[in-house]
Amino acid sequence: MSETTVTVVGNVATTPVYRELPKGPVARFRLAATARRFDRVRNEWVDGHTNFFTVWAWGALGTNVQGSLSIGEPVLVQGRLRVRDEERGGQHWTSADIQASAVGHDLSRGTTAFRRARQGQPGRRPDGDEPSFEIDPQADGEPEEQGEQSEQREPAAVG
Amino acid sequence: MSETTVTVVGNVATTPVYRELPKGPVARFRLAATARRFDRVRNEWVDGHTNFFTVWAWGALGTNVQGSLSIGEPVLVQGRLRVRDEERGGQHWTSADIQASAVGHDLSRGTTAFRRARQGQPGRRPDGDEPSFEIDPQADGEPEEQGEQSEQREPAAVG
Amino acid sequence: MSETTVTVVGNVATTPVYRELPKGPVARFRLAATARRFDRVRNEWVDGHTNFFTVWAWGALGTNVQGSLSIGEPVLVQGRLRVRDEERGGQHWTSADIQASAVGHDLSRGTTAFRRARQGQPGRRPDGDEPSFEIDPQADGEPEEQGEQSEQREPAAVG
Amino acid sequence: MSETTVTVVGNVATTPVYRELPKGPVARFRLAATARRFDRVRNEWVDGHTNFFTVWAWGALGTNVQGSLSIGEPVLVQGRLRVRDEERGGQHWTSADIQASAVGHDLSRGTTAFRRARQGQPGRRPDGDEPSFEIDPQADGEPEEQGEQSEQREPAAVG
Repeated sequence: MSETTVTVVGNVATTPVYRELPKGPVARFRLAATARRFDRVRNEWVDGHTNFFTVWAWGALGTNVQGSLSIGEPVLVQGRLRVRDEERGGQHWTSADIQASAVGHDLSRGTTAFRRARQGQPGRRPDGDEPSFEIDPQADGEPEEQGEQSEQREPAAVG
Repeated sequence: MSETTVTVVGNVATTPVYRELPKGPVARFRLAATARRFDRVRNEWVDGHTNFFTVWAWGALGTNVQGSLSIGEPVLVQGRLRVRDEERGGQHWTSADIQASAVGHDLSRGTTAFRRARQGQPGRRPDGDEPSFEIDPQADGEPEEQGEQSEQREPAAVG
Repeated sequence: MSETTVTVVGNVATTPVYRELPKGPVARFRLAATARRFDRVRNEWVDGHTNFFTVWAWGALGTNVQGSLSIGEPVLVQGRLRVRDEERGGQHWTSADIQASAVGHDLSRGTTAFRRARQGQPGRRPDGDEPSFEIDPQADGEPEEQGEQSEQREPAAVG
Repeated sequence: MSETTVTVVGNVATTPVYRELPKGPVARFRLAATARRFDRVRNEWVDGHTNFFTVWAWGALGTNVQGSLSIGEPVLVQGRLRVRDEERGGQHWTSADIQASAVGHDLSRGTTAFRRARQGQPGRRPDGDEPSFEIDPQADGEPEEQGEQSEQREPAAVG
């Protein structure tokens, strides 16, 4: 058994929320990925199901996500998938999180100008070290207080 | 944007449930995948978070899953990930489904004897055809009636 | 059996080469991906093996790759892997190509400013359509004439 | 930058070769993966390009691969991709290797009976430990002597 890694191509569905935590900076946003399938009867491509994920970016990646991504922009995200089940307020919740290891604007839809981060910026957490994966985001990794549970689930803009 | 494909290595968490539907045979089971991470303080590997998925296998793959997999066995599963949100009985549910394209016993844990399926068995749905992906499993693709919603979420044995 | 899809995180190893072909624009560059592994004896992360790939980007993705990527920049690339074997000039060659479906600057290393491509630009080839995959890049898909075969294999700058 | 992980669905193209090495048992075989694409003109699925990989399975996985897989059988393989370039005998060689983390018979094509390995068998090398990845298979990890270099490239049966 091992980590389940995914690469998701989709759109930024909520404005990234950023927070400086004792263990380093983190940015969080919702990612929407719509499948496309070919409809043979209509002989054209049509939209299929849309998956939503909550993406967590730590360290320098989080800082740069915060400084680069806006709602609606196309991105590709690679990271470890975490499906979480929990009970809150008598309700059963499940969410699909991605602990991102790499994030980028998708050049299928436009162009980007890249600026390398300066030395001395918060370093990227090295792959495989995994100190952040087992934390409970509800307990201490949440970028901001959640007024209502439903807000966390909505793909609408946050903050 | 495109389908999100995953490969998950884990254990069969529920006995596969099999059903012959008008659109072909289907088998469904729960898959548990536990991450392993290295704890540097303890200098050993420890279990991390466990992801649960509902795996759907159609056509010949479903028939062979039904004839091969038992609860507790180690497997690897490749397929398309589908995160679903829905309201049922006033409760909010999310589930992580995998529409399997390939499934196999994981040889990391033991050996297998393979027997090729006979000609004339229900053919495998070709990749990319995707006729089954957009169906609503609740409506017509569910292998069996669900007495209670909670049963579907439990990794305990079904049937 | 199906396509083998990979996501590679690495650096642009050659300046992208761009060409307008009858079947649409295409950009090509070499991608270097170095594994990092934890050396327990030295108690630090060290560089491991470097994989080199030739990335092909068609349509709008190719145009935007050409307008965005420079040698040395960090990127992530998703696409279909193609390992090719051939005989040329009495020598045996193998190369690992990626037919890119998505490419982006890796925000782990810096920030990007995104500009959406205008309407009317050459459209992205839809996923799954696959008209370009089976072409022989040597025959008609090569962005430019190659003076020497060895140039194509080198990760040094081209053009 | 990080390891490039792939999952390949294909067929065993050579009989697995097994060897007991000081660092543990290893099995090696060639894997052939043929893409399928939909030809709209002919309105049917046709075979596309075939990728060949050399799969390396270490530890208990290697022992079980040796005891389970035969040439021609359908499998799925997950592991780390390694593209190697080298000069041998004045010729330039590239090969695409996979350091397998999981291997299984593909149930799309038939059924399997699974037998769990006994306790006390050689343990599986834990994920992420990666002691074997940087070895040079030509130097000390090769399961058997190669009479001719070309044999290694051929998808025909070995041994």
